[in-house]
Amino acid sequence: GEVFDKEIYQDNSLAGVVTGLAWTSVGGEILFIEASISRGKGKLTLSGQLGDVMKESAMTAISYLKSQAESLNIDHRVFDQYDLHIHVPAGAVPKDGPSAGITMLTAIASVYTQRKVRSRLAMTGEITLRGKVMPVGGIKEKILAAKRAGIDDIILCKRNMRDIEEIDESYLKGVQFHFVDHVSEVLDIALLKETVAHPVKFTFDNEASKSREN
Amino acid sequence: GEVFDKEIYQDNSLAGVVTGLAWTSVGGEILFIEASISRGKGKLTLSGQLGDVMKESAMTAISYLKSQAESLNIDHRVFDQYDLHIHVPAGAVPKDGPSAGITMLTAIASVYTQRKVRSRLAMTGEITLRGKVMPVGGIKEKILAAKRAGIDDIILCKRNMRDIEEIDESYLKGVQFHFVDHVSEVLDIALLKETVAHPVKFTFDNEASKSREN
Amino acid sequence: GEVFDKEIYQDNSLAGVVTGLAWTSVGGEILFIEASISRGKGKLTLSGQLGDVMKESAMTAISYLKSQAESLNIDHRVFDQYDLHIHVPAGAVPKDGPSAGITMLTAIASVYTQRKVRSRLAMTGEITLRGKVMPVGGIKEKILAAKRAGIDDIILCKRNMRDIEEIDESYLKGVQFHFVDHVSEVLDIALLKETVAHPVKFTFDNEASKSREN
Amino acid sequence: GEVFDKEIYQDNSLAGVVTGLAWTSVGGEILFIEASISRGKGKLTLSGQLGDVMKESAMTAISYLKSQAESLNIDHRVFDQYDLHIHVPAGAVPKDGPSAGITMLTAIASVYTQRKVRSRLAMTGEITLRGKVMPVGGIKEKILAAKRAGIDDIILCKRNMRDIEEIDESYLKGVQFHFVDHVSEVLDIALLKETVAHPVKFTFDNEASKSREN
Amino acid sequence: GEVFDKEIYQDNSLAGVVTGLAWTSVGGEILFIEASISRGKGKLTLSGQLGDVMKESAMTAISYLKSQAESLNIDHRVFDQYDLHIHVPAGAVPKDGPSAGITMLTAIASVYTQRKVRSRLAMTGEITLRGKVMPVGGIKEKILAAKRAGIDDIILCKRNMRDIEEIDESYLKGVQFHFVDHVSEVLDIALLKETVAHPVKFTFDNEASKSREN
Amino acid sequence: GEVFDKEIYQDNSLAGVVTGLAWTSVGGEILFIEASISRGKGKLTLSGQLGDVMKESAMTAISYLKSQAESLNIDHRVFDQYDLHIHVPAGAVPKDGPSAGITMLTAIASVYTQRKVRSRLAMTGEITLRGKVMPVGGIKEKILAAKRAGIDDIILCKRNMRDIEEIDESYLKGVQFHFVDHVSEVLDIALLKETVAHPVKFTFDNEASKSREN
Ligand SMILES: [Ca+2]
Ligand SMILES: [Ca+2]
Ligand SMILES: [Ca+2]
Ligand SMILES: [Ca+2]
Ligand SMILES: [Ca+2]
Ligand SMILES: [Ca+2]
Ligand SMILES: [Ca+2]
Ligand SMILES: [Ca+2]
Ligand SMILES: [Ca+2]
Ligand SMILES: [Ca+2]
Ligand SMILES: [Ca+2]
Ligand SMILES: [Ca+2]
Repeated sequence: GEVFDKEIYQDNSLAGVVTGLAWTSVGGEILFIEASISRGKGKLTLSGQLGDVMKESAMTAISYLKSQAESLNIDHRVFDQYDLHIHVPAGAVPKDGPSAGITMLTAIASVYTQRKVRSRLAMTGEITLRGKVMPVGGIKEKILAAKRAGIDDIILCKRNMRDIEEIDESYLKGVQFHFVDHVSEVLDIALLKETVAHPVKFTFDNEASKSREN
Repeated sequence: GEVFDKEIYQDNSLAGVVTGLAWTSVGGEILFIEASISRGKGKLTLSGQLGDVMKESAMTAISYLKSQAESLNIDHRVFDQYDLHIHVPAGAVPKDGPSAGITMLTAIASVYTQRKVRSRLAMTGEITLRGKVMPVGGIKEKILAAKRAGIDDIILCKRNMRDIEEIDESYLKGVQFHFVDHVSEVLDIALLKETVAHPVKFTFDNEASKSREN
Repeated sequence: GEVFDKEIYQDNSLAGVVTGLAWTSVGGEILFIEASISRGKGKLTLSGQLGDVMKESAMTAISYLKSQAESLNIDHRVFDQYDLHIHVPAGAVPKDGPSAGITMLTAIASVYTQRKVRSRLAMTGEITLRGKVMPVGGIKEKILAAKRAGIDDIILCKRNMRDIEEIDESYLKGVQFHFVDHVSEVLDIALLKETVAHPVKFTFDNEASKSREN
Repeated sequence: GEVFDKEIYQDNSLAGVVTGLAWTSVGGEILFIEASISRGKGKLTLSGQLGDVMKESAMTAISYLKSQAESLNIDHRVFDQYDLHIHVPAGAVPKDGPSAGITMLTAIASVYTQRKVRSRLAMTGEITLRGKVMPVGGIKEKILAAKRAGIDDIILCKRNMRDIEEIDESYLKGVQFHFVDHVSEVLDIALLKETVAHPVKFTFDNEASKSREN
Repeated sequence: GEVFDKEIYQDNSLAGVVTGLAWTSVGGEILFIEASISRGKGKLTLSGQLGDVMKESAMTAISYLKSQAESLNIDHRVFDQYDLHIHVPAGAVPKDGPSAGITMLTAIASVYTQRKVRSRLAMTGEITLRGKVMPVGGIKEKILAAKRAGIDDIILCKRNMRDIEEIDESYLKGVQFHFVDHVSEVLDIALLKETVAHPVKFTFDNEASKSREN
Repeated sequence: GEVFDKEIYQDNSLAGVVTGLAWTSVGGEILFIEASISRGKGKLTLSGQLGDVMKESAMTAISYLKSQAESLNIDHRVFDQYDLHIHVPAGAVPKDGPSAGITMLTAIASVYTQRKVRSRLAMTGEITLRGKVMPVGGIKEKILAAKRAGIDDIILCKRNMRDIEEIDESYLKGVQFHFVDHVSEVLDIALLKETVAHPVKFTFDNEASKSREN
């Protein structure tokens, strides 16, 4: 029954790694979204046998962050002068669906800002291009998996509140839920103010960063 | 029976978001076309599991707007110096067909002009490259869905008038219909003169915007 | 039985729109080829669910026009500095075959020259790269459809004359036939000397238009 | 039974048009290879529903001509500064196989040199990258088709001589055969010294044609 | 039963060649990952009939090394100014799966640093983008194959320790196991401080290596 | 039974043409690998209906030669400023497998060095990226085909020696075998010191060949 990477929550020492919640026919599991950057030309690489819907979620997350770069203190040149790679272990397990949307968005925001991700946090929810968070399925199984993995905080779409109400309260003890409507709320909860230790020091090509005027 | 995003009409605070009407075997629904831009090189991204016909509708809408940029007060450099992303939630639901043509065109026009979209407005109709609006199917189901969602104004092709006449009048109460032949009429009805709050401030690369002469 | 856009002939106020004749298992229909240009880099977009043969017809038409640009008074820079979009409504109807060759060629020639297209004219015929016009099928059904749509002039390949002879004369009344061997004859008949109202004013990038010498 | 373009030999007034011989289950036919150039960046377009093997033949022909440009008096800049289109009517008929190799090579050589093609000449034979001519099938049917079409001279591979010997001599009357081993012999026979009337006047971009040294 | 290249361990005279362990239905085998570089533009070539998962492993390995280039003393310009080719013999045998992750990462690190690979070493383990090493299957068969091939040291994921405990100790004699959590440990064990004889002398294009600032 | 080009060995007057040995269900045959270059930008073209494995062999051969350019006296600029085409007649016969590896490598080395290929020589063997030669199948049939074709020298992998020992000695008379481990041995045997008559005179673009420093 091991579909995703079954181990417990790990740590938040690295920027760009966020814990998601997956749901398969054999139950819930936590999974890790890993985002990494390196100097380049804005190339995007997706790996981990991601399906079409999940790839589109990643692209939607990136477009949202690009259009909100200023308010997130992200230098816009990073999108053209760094390559971005998003990987979802385990490498041989096919994955699809929109429910990793907020998790991918948070991982990308963390790697571009080098801000630390809140510890023992997991999340699940679809995103839209304007930043709405939409409800997803498998909530009960996902919550059980999060508890087994040692998660303390879970972010869900407000419209998934009804799914929580159907779960026996004993299963919910010790987990704090954060119900959100918009990804700005997700980032407020998930990204700490402090940067990770040894953050990437972004550098930019002078010539390419010439001024634009209106 | 939830195929598209079933909630009610939302609001018109953002540029680039327009309400469309969809029709499936289980009835009508409203759907949202979301258009977003960010500094770039004119790349187009389409997401939301769109089929070939719907992707071609988007390309036709863009070509129409490019050829009419001047009359719409769109600076032509925006097409080369900004990337455009069009997303149609829900992300996992396959969508196809030409009937979102006028909705996509309006969303793109709104995001490039930053003009506000009329509130509580929905629309459905195919476009052609010269701007003609063509009739589409499922009118009855779409109208019922629009009413459920709180829509006040609906734009339809003139050639869909006959479909309206077959609907019992009690279903039509409280909705105003706008029958059009051409997308210029659609934009006149759908786009307000005022811009959204906090509009995108377009900036352009000096070097790339060198003059052209004839 | 509505396969293509069934309405009557429209008008010739726009450059780049030419009426073709299609033939399906349910009879003949008129269809419109729409060509549109906008500032760009010579990109070609084809839409309307066109099949491989029809796409190749479009490419053959473009190559012919490029090689004959001088004699048609087309500034060669237009091919590199403008994008071309060809759309064939209705957007959801798959279309294929070589018989729209002369219609596409005329639409493209009109949009590049901004010359008006003769009113109430329709045409059908395959083209080859050296400009030959070749015969096509479904002539009888196509002519009936043209008459229904209010067409006055029809251009056909000379080798389709035999097909006309088999049609009862009563069906041919009021339509004038133009039998041609070469696309230069097609353009002579189809393109008026006058330009459309409000023609596109072509502008060119100075740097890219540097002189070439032999 | 009309598979290819059934008419008779046409004329040799245009550069880049060469008569080939095809063989299908319903007999032999002549076909025309049309090559056309226009100012561009060295793009190659192939049309006429050509299969993989036939496309590779075209690429092999081009590579041969590029490597022999100097001896054929072709300015090497033409390969980078002009686009090449090869079309084989009829546009809707799928075609494949290597036997049009020498015909395509001759058409391309004619269009790049603007030399006239010998009148009433047809040919069939595979080429290899070093210029060898290899034997092909269907010789008897192809010869009958050539005769019907009014062809006077036929170029064949030397190793196809045995196929000729099996044909009744009455069928061969009035046709002169040229048996060759190498494409240089093909070009010597097929290309006249004179250029066509109104040859393309090649022009080159100064900047791109900078000198190379060893 | 010969699926991979069955011979014994070879030598470590070349940078970029690392011994992996594969497992098929007919037992374990050693295989060689070969990485090679040459001046270029950062192109990646993968060969040896690698499946999607294995290709993604290679891309993940490269992204990890790019993001850690500084700490590994790799000049970042090498990623843009050299091409990288990864080949896995035998060329006709399809291969897939994530278990060559650490082997590919080590081969690439060796070729970019020109550091010698520890002799008589083999390894198997999946990598993730943040450098975690994950457990893989077929451990018993892989170890037997390594012993037959003359391997002295084997690197495995810590979470594969339990698989070792189930193997009869007599099979383990003479092989030293290194259990790791992170690829930094893999590189510490596998890459010697010394470079190979006749290392590649990297050269860089001056213009392209212009400074970047923050 | 004619699968490949059945004629006898030809000659070695051209650089870039090397004789290989193929093996099909109907016996062995010789085949010719043809490599050709022309001024360009480093584009690679493969033709002759080559399968994936054979295409990867070609890419592996090229990468090996690029990484060994200096020791083979190949100016590295040739890889960026010349296009390479590899064709394997007959054009319509699908071919696959890794056994043409050393033949392709030798053909490419000959065309880049313009060195003559030893006359009446044939070879078969897989290559790896580090230059190892690996054994291949069908040795007996291949040797018989080589003898029929007038071949005097055959290069094989050392690990194919055992296959020779099983052949009746009468079949081996008059053929000299060269058993090798590494492609450097292949090139030593196959490439003569002298260049072909009328060798290509390589020229290079000054601007692009700017110096690199470390
Ligand atoms: Ca797991
Ligand atoms: Ca899909
Ligand atoms: Ca819904
Ligand atoms: Ca389709
Ligand atoms: Ca219609
Ligand atoms: Ca097709
Ligand atoms: Ca015919
Ligand atoms: Ca094929
Ligand atoms: Ca083996
Ligand atoms: Ca796969
Ligand atoms: Ca043969
Ligand atoms: Ca394959």
